[in-house]
Amino acid sequence: MARNTQVAADHHAPPITQTLADFVAKHPSRGWSDAVDHEAHRTFLNWAGCAVGAAQHDTAQAALAAVQVLQPAAQATLLGRHERVDVASAALINGISSHTFDFDDTHLKTIIHPAGPVASALLALAELTGASGRALIDALVLGIDVSCRVGNAMYPEHYDRGWHITGSTGMLGAAAACARLLQLDAPRTAMALGIAASQPIGVREQFGTMTKPFHPGGAARAGLMAALMAQHGYTASSRALEAPRGMMQTISTKNDWPQVTSELGQRFEISFNTYKPFACGIVIHPSIDACAQLRAQGVAPQLVERIELKVHSLVLELTGKKEPADGLQAKFSVYHGCAAGLSFGRAGEDEFADAIVNRADMVALRRKVVATVDDSIDEASADVTAVLTDGRRVRVFVEHAIGSLARPMSDAQLEAKFHGMADPVLGAERCSALIQACWGLGQAADLRALAALGAQASPG
Amino acid sequence: MARNTQVAADHHAPPITQTLADFVAKHPSRGWSDAVDHEAHRTFLNWAGCAVGAAQHDTAQAALAAVQVLQPAAQATLLGRHERVDVASAALINGISSHTFDFDDTHLKTIIHPAGPVASALLALAELTGASGRALIDALVLGIDVSCRVGNAMYPEHYDRGWHITGSTGMLGAAAACARLLQLDAPRTAMALGIAASQPIGVREQFGTMTKPFHPGGAARAGLMAALMAQHGYTASSRALEAPRGMMQTISTKNDWPQVTSELGQRFEISFNTYKPFACGIVIHPSIDACAQLRAQGVAPQLVERIELKVHSLVLELTGKKEPADGLQAKFSVYHGCAAGLSFGRAGEDEFADAIVNRADMVALRRKVVATVDDSIDEASADVTAVLTDGRRVRVFVEHAIGSLARPMSDAQLEAKFHGMADPVLGAERCSALIQACWGLGQAADLRALAALGAQASPG
Repeated sequence: MARNTQVAADHHAPPITQTLADFVAKHPSRGWSDAVDHEAHRTFLNWAGCAVGAAQHDTAQAALAAVQVLQPAAQATLLGRHERVDVASAALINGISSHTFDFDDTHLKTIIHPAGPVASALLALAELTGASGRALIDALVLGIDVSCRVGNAMYPEHYDRGWHITGSTGMLGAAAACARLLQLDAPRTAMALGIAASQPIGVREQFGTMTKPFHPGGAARAGLMAALMAQHGYTASSRALEAPRGMMQTISTKNDWPQVTSELGQRFEISFNTYKPFACGIVIHPSIDACAQLRAQGVAPQLVERIELKVHSLVLELTGKKEPADGLQAKFSVYHGCAAGLSFGRAGEDEFADAIVNRADMVALRRKVVATVDDSIDEASADVTAVLTDGRRVRVFVEHAIGSLARPMSDAQLEAKFHGMADPVLGAERCSALIQACWGLGQAADLRALAALGAQASPG
Repeated sequence: MARNTQVAADHHAPPITQTLADFVAKHPSRGWSDAVDHEAHRTFLNWAGCAVGAAQHDTAQAALAAVQVLQPAAQATLLGRHERVDVASAALINGISSHTFDFDDTHLKTIIHPAGPVASALLALAELTGASGRALIDALVLGIDVSCRVGNAMYPEHYDRGWHITGSTGMLGAAAACARLLQLDAPRTAMALGIAASQPIGVREQFGTMTKPFHPGGAARAGLMAALMAQHGYTASSRALEAPRGMMQTISTKNDWPQVTSELGQRFEISFNTYKPFACGIVIHPSIDACAQLRAQGVAPQLVERIELKVHSLVLELTGKKEPADGLQAKFSVYHGCAAGLSFGRAGEDEFADAIVNRADMVALRRKVVATVDDSIDEASADVTAVLTDGRRVRVFVEHAIGSLARPMSDAQLEAKFHGMADPVLGAERCSALIQACWGLGQAADLRALAALGAQASPG
């Protein structure tokens, strides 16, 4: 009956749960720089584009079919769809859609995709409560701060162990954000964080299946419900995050507590958010970027004799597939990435479609790429030279790919990415209006107009 | 970017997910002994009594208030209440109620409380689909087998680390049971287990808060939704349980794989299920049992001069509170336990009410208990002698307390426990009918009659 545990425990952890709850409940509205506030709008915009883009995918379809068994009330919008469901289910489905293309945002320090859990919960709840756009942006900044700070403390051990860190910290971000939107006081916010702390979601073995995008969706739903339960008096431990048998020590053997609290309210983790320009693994991005730059300089595919590509050995190790058979394999082919960059100047979900991957001109162009390993080149760089049929050589060296923290995507590039994903679902005109609504979020009286633009007018 | 993981992984785990899915999908109806089938009825009966008993508690109330924000469809019954909610929310709330008094069943090998997640999901789903009572009992046996077998493999390391094992295996049991009830084939059952595997719920830091009973409720909801998603084509890894970055290796460093699969279909873990006779920590049970036996032998409280109690040191270490101030403290007082056993012959939730704990005669009786430590007595035993005012001595030695595997509660005792919990909510007559419906479950055409009896006729 009695048994001494073998598992080490830190009995002196600082009061993380209370500190974060105080911060979330009390930090002033827009209590940060304009740059941080603009980054929040960019994060929301990118998330919305991803969610609209994948809304009709089999993954969203299957999840929605299960939700419809529950005969949900028509409370909230599903981006890119005409159906309406209850707020918890809307958080789930929008969260799933936003991660289905693996094209959403990345907090590079932890590889958390922070918007999925937090924005998905917030949009649904804001529609229900009539919250202002300002309140939503405030909650987004604070929620993302919570999940990424907890992630900073546990990364990398927690991730290496097997957790999909987006879902296993995202429920805290969603709970914090929803608590803020509901204007819960600090003690109730602590309870919301506490209830969420019992629900980390997602293991990495699921990568490559529909359950991967379930992770941010499930985290969004769990966080939203945790906040609603706390609002109605449900209790949890006020040390649920940090106690010896609390969440963090249970799911990670590395817990660097100061990472959670240092510069709280001064440094905002959303500042370190990045947006993928290309719908594939980040290691190929510099090569695609270089080829797109060649195209912009007038190097057309038909002029090309050979593409000489010099990259770090890791690039070929991870993405060295020479003859990809379909879109999924092409996401692991730097050769296809180069061909797409040169042919289209971009590599969104469309450029990884099976039909494109197997098109004769693409196959031929891929075969013209000669890759060599050069470990003096950084993993995040690429050195590409186009050798033209007339003998000319055109070289582009990319030190930091577009989309990295050093070379962030511009607002215009984010808009183009949005259109690339979402136009096929909502049409270009509606997408332009939706983009404008996202930029104007901080001034919006409520979310109704944005949600109406984001929904399909009728079955698509 | 590249990083070798420091976390050890077993790349040679057997195909646990597939093996369990095959078993759940294909094992014949009632493919076990009559004893196992009867134990399933006892498990369901005990679970239903617990759920009815706590249905009006603040814990269930707060959770339901949050659920009602979603405007749920009136699909399924909440035991002990008149409201109806959607099936996922019914699984949640009934699961919460059934664990609120900490009075439910215990699989002693793992200290999993197996019925909460599994039965809560099954009753809701069976109401919706019109499944037979036989199908529900089959699914209950198989679902509990899945969660307890996975628990056997991970226990005790997984529990010691901080997981509340009831919620961190229960979602698998609920998913398996619901997959069976939905008659999913083996591949879809594997997907249901896989989706559930990303959702282990509950850390032990929550003990003493409302989030403890949330764990079986949340697991019930997660498992039910996982089965519905799999039914509609949602996918997960077919090695989600056992892969190096799958659930079990992520949440436990001990994984004794053969514990999952040995004697599968021959030995059923529900055979090892037990039912608490008293609403407090199991270490006090032998002392309460002994005092209740004294009472049955005619030892009335007013005849008692002194109670001499000899127990293992652990009993006083854990439950040595001499003057408990309220019901919660009384659950950690072997002195109050003895007084309750002698005064009432039982120690249900009522006997731990604040008013009872503070009643003058109870305070006086507690003070007559003289406890001494004797480590030659087993932790699961108690040696109690009543010294009467006329000088007589009456001794009872309890080797195994009632409710243990060695001395299981009789069916009549389970019924009495049910009445003790549920009569205040539904009335004695209705409870008698509900008990009969539970015993007759294996023959019931569907769950409608049982569910109707379990609900409150009108706001109570």
